[in-house]
Amino acid sequence: VLFLQMGWGDLGAFGEPSKETPNLDQMAAEGMLFLDFYTANPLCSPSRAALLTGRLPIRNGFYTTNAHARNAYTPQDIVGGIQDSELLLPELLKKAGYINKIIGKWHLGHRPQFHPLKHGFDEWFGSPNCHFGPYDNREIPNIPVYRDWEMIGRYYDDFKIDLKTGEANLTQLYLQEALDFISKQQASQQPFFLYWAIDATHAPVYASKQFLGTSQRGLYGDAVREIDDSIGKILRHLQKLGISENTFVFFTSDNGAALISAPKQGGSNGPFLCGKQTTFEGGMREPAIAWWPGHIPAGGVSHQLGNVMDLFTTSLSLAGLEPPSDRQIDGIDLLPVMLQGKLIDRPIFYYRGNEMMAVRVGLYKAHYWTWSNSWEEYGKGTDFCPGQSVSGVTTHTQEEHTYLPLLFHLGRDPGEKFPLSFASEEYQHAMERISGIVQQHKDTLVPGEPQLNVCDSAIMNWSPPGCEKLGKCLKAPESDPKKCSWPH
Amino acid sequence: VLFLQMGWGDLGAFGEPSKETPNLDQMAAEGMLFLDFYTANPLCSPSRAALLTGRLPIRNGFYTTNAHARNAYTPQDIVGGIQDSELLLPELLKKAGYINKIIGKWHLGHRPQFHPLKHGFDEWFGSPNCHFGPYDNREIPNIPVYRDWEMIGRYYDDFKIDLKTGEANLTQLYLQEALDFISKQQASQQPFFLYWAIDATHAPVYASKQFLGTSQRGLYGDAVREIDDSIGKILRHLQKLGISENTFVFFTSDNGAALISAPKQGGSNGPFLCGKQTTFEGGMREPAIAWWPGHIPAGGVSHQLGNVMDLFTTSLSLAGLEPPSDRQIDGIDLLPVMLQGKLIDRPIFYYRGNEMMAVRVGLYKAHYWTWSNSWEEYGKGTDFCPGQSVSGVTTHTQEEHTYLPLLFHLGRDPGEKFPLSFASEEYQHAMERISGIVQQHKDTLVPGEPQLNVCDSAIMNWSPPGCEKLGKCLKAPESDPKKCSWPH
Repeated sequence: VLFLQMGWGDLGAFGEPSKETPNLDQMAAEGMLFLDFYTANPLCSPSRAALLTGRLPIRNGFYTTNAHARNAYTPQDIVGGIQDSELLLPELLKKAGYINKIIGKWHLGHRPQFHPLKHGFDEWFGSPNCHFGPYDNREIPNIPVYRDWEMIGRYYDDFKIDLKTGEANLTQLYLQEALDFISKQQASQQPFFLYWAIDATHAPVYASKQFLGTSQRGLYGDAVREIDDSIGKILRHLQKLGISENTFVFFTSDNGAALISAPKQGGSNGPFLCGKQTTFEGGMREPAIAWWPGHIPAGGVSHQLGNVMDLFTTSLSLAGLEPPSDRQIDGIDLLPVMLQGKLIDRPIFYYRGNEMMAVRVGLYKAHYWTWSNSWEEYGKGTDFCPGQSVSGVTTHTQEEHTYLPLLFHLGRDPGEKFPLSFASEEYQHAMERISGIVQQHKDTLVPGEPQLNVCDSAIMNWSPPGCEKLGKCLKAPESDPKKCSWPH
Repeated sequence: VLFLQMGWGDLGAFGEPSKETPNLDQMAAEGMLFLDFYTANPLCSPSRAALLTGRLPIRNGFYTTNAHARNAYTPQDIVGGIQDSELLLPELLKKAGYINKIIGKWHLGHRPQFHPLKHGFDEWFGSPNCHFGPYDNREIPNIPVYRDWEMIGRYYDDFKIDLKTGEANLTQLYLQEALDFISKQQASQQPFFLYWAIDATHAPVYASKQFLGTSQRGLYGDAVREIDDSIGKILRHLQKLGISENTFVFFTSDNGAALISAPKQGGSNGPFLCGKQTTFEGGMREPAIAWWPGHIPAGGVSHQLGNVMDLFTTSLSLAGLEPPSDRQIDGIDLLPVMLQGKLIDRPIFYYRGNEMMAVRVGLYKAHYWTWSNSWEEYGKGTDFCPGQSVSGVTTHTQEEHTYLPLLFHLGRDPGEKFPLSFASEEYQHAMERISGIVQQHKDTLVPGEPQLNVCDSAIMNWSPPGCEKLGKCLKAPESDPKKCSWPH
């Protein structure tokens, strides 16, 4: 599974005008393009928790109740993280003899009990949090980079990211890790699960020297080109080792392009409305490609409504395993879609924090709540919808539409610009069906314990395991837990 | 040449989310995709005049001086049209023995002296104006449909368009005409030029019964699907006749998608700003595909800045002819681009009526004037940029920026949302180069006599040639010439 912050419109195959992703475009030509594929939340941590648990963040605890409908994630002062009671994909795959590795950003909590090797992964090269920084290591520690159980350095101190030029060789390190891991498993004929969760396209965006300045699109494009090149190398490596027909590869993203970072550090959501942090299509509809030569027909295109949570169920299915039956799983098995061209009827829920903002059923999307961000944040220059403004839709106050949802037909109006008339027959018919689905979802929902409510600077990455050996332990301040502030 | 009103984002190959154009996508896979291809004007008549003359509308007379920077075209009360002094592509191709046919909308004037068969075409099946209507044949006559010199009926009266259901079989008629013409020329081993200027995607949008309701995108999508299907049939016909390797085919559009007609009757401009009638990218950047099996490499992609006027020069080149040397020709020969992968440095000028609004040089686009439409028109609900609003850019008053043009980098910012800082070095460098090009253009420009200034209801299609035989002549009112009103 390849997982990173890119927008629906960032690939040539999805209409990016510079068309600079030949490897991903070829992956699509050799595999299946999903045009209606979603993430489970419009930002990083909750989406990643959803992918690995097969469950909506409202169930697995990756949300906040500090305020209504607020996006929350795992900065390094977050107290919560993935609970032991959750069953992660690698934990389950272990039962079928899989070796599991995560390369890149974990983001499900950085405290010892949340360590990926305590949740089913056998190997890890990467960081627990975003590569923000540089910090002074006094007020805030720099983010550690781990190899397996222990840290081996910190971003900016040991793993350089030059914010001025945008140069960093991290994607090359992550690529080499991937190629080596694949070679090793092939040599020992070991089934494996690789979660390649790189983050070069997340601000601060970076690329290796050889890619800097090579894109028409600026630094963000350089990062995309390096990722594209790396994915090409990974796929060719699988072919060279003769295991491409035994390896299922899926490419997608954890949220829409972060338009607040555009144009230098943000991507494109193509024709869709707004970006990351919002429950409009630009925030949650993702580029998605499935690749499995000899099994998935080349050049396939699917309009199956898909979700990153489906990768949980689909991967289990590939390994001959059943998803857990003691809890609600939101992911579905996409194998019948990919192998037999089936279309499975299922809704997509668009959550923001504790609130179901919208739901898609077929080609209809009903908004029960609309919000881009607050007037206060907007006034400070934070704009999730630059250049876009749809009256009554991209609102800067939280607007409830529960009793008369705003309804869009995403076939005729993928950009969510023209709500259907409440008085139309089409509205009545569509909402009848949608209301039943929403009612059933709400009636049976058991929210998990919210993990993203409490922050405490005492629990930041001051002294990760392994820091002693490196002489990189830092002194933590006294504990002072507070409600985290989530302005979005 | 295939020419019609579709937006950059309307094809699957250009990222339309429903991906319903398998034939055009395959045409692109077998040919060359132009990602930076433009029309010469953001609306129909001037673009068509530019394509056939290889010259900007400001030179060939397809503009108005009634008001500053106003879009004008050829409604049926227009007095002007294509001048005899202009040399049209078919006139020139005749010298090389070509038989030339236009199928569909002519749009270069409907009075006798402007008839396409007086300007180089040998055959015509189609109409002189848009398929607007139905009219009452008293105040306004219905638009005639011609076969060659004479009318054979009128839209709505004889050629039905059902505005309620959107049903009309016109695209099927145009397709059959095209297939028959090709067969006939192949049988007589006659070189030919076919200008297939259909208009099913122009409001009022229509499709044949077999395509109605088949698209996710509604009626507009049905029309696109029928066109896509027709183009597939034309290309396969060329292959079946064994002449595909001797036939150059180019697909493009005369203006961006008309977002005022969205969502039911308007298409998509993908990630670009605004639509038809504007000089933003959405108004003038077009889908474009060149196809010539055995010559143009399959799967090619070009970033050549291209223009519909290039089809004039390129077609002459294919026929072994030189463009006229006694006048300024704006089109360039694209053969080196298509056959040898060359990139030719050339600017793109964005005109609206008598004003050069913007220019593109390389990846930079400088706006010398900005305007979407007037507050008055906007207040009446005419919106060329629905859901889009870029402060200081999509203005509702005509804003002059001649002394400090608004500059965009279309690689980093294809949506024209983030003007470069005037103080930046990048701005200074880019504008130095652009200013010289604009200066030279303006210094050498000799505007043609404007053809789109005067309207007179006496010269409407009351009694086209052939009306007597059909008993379809109508009585014209007395002549009352006035300045045409061009609100956009």
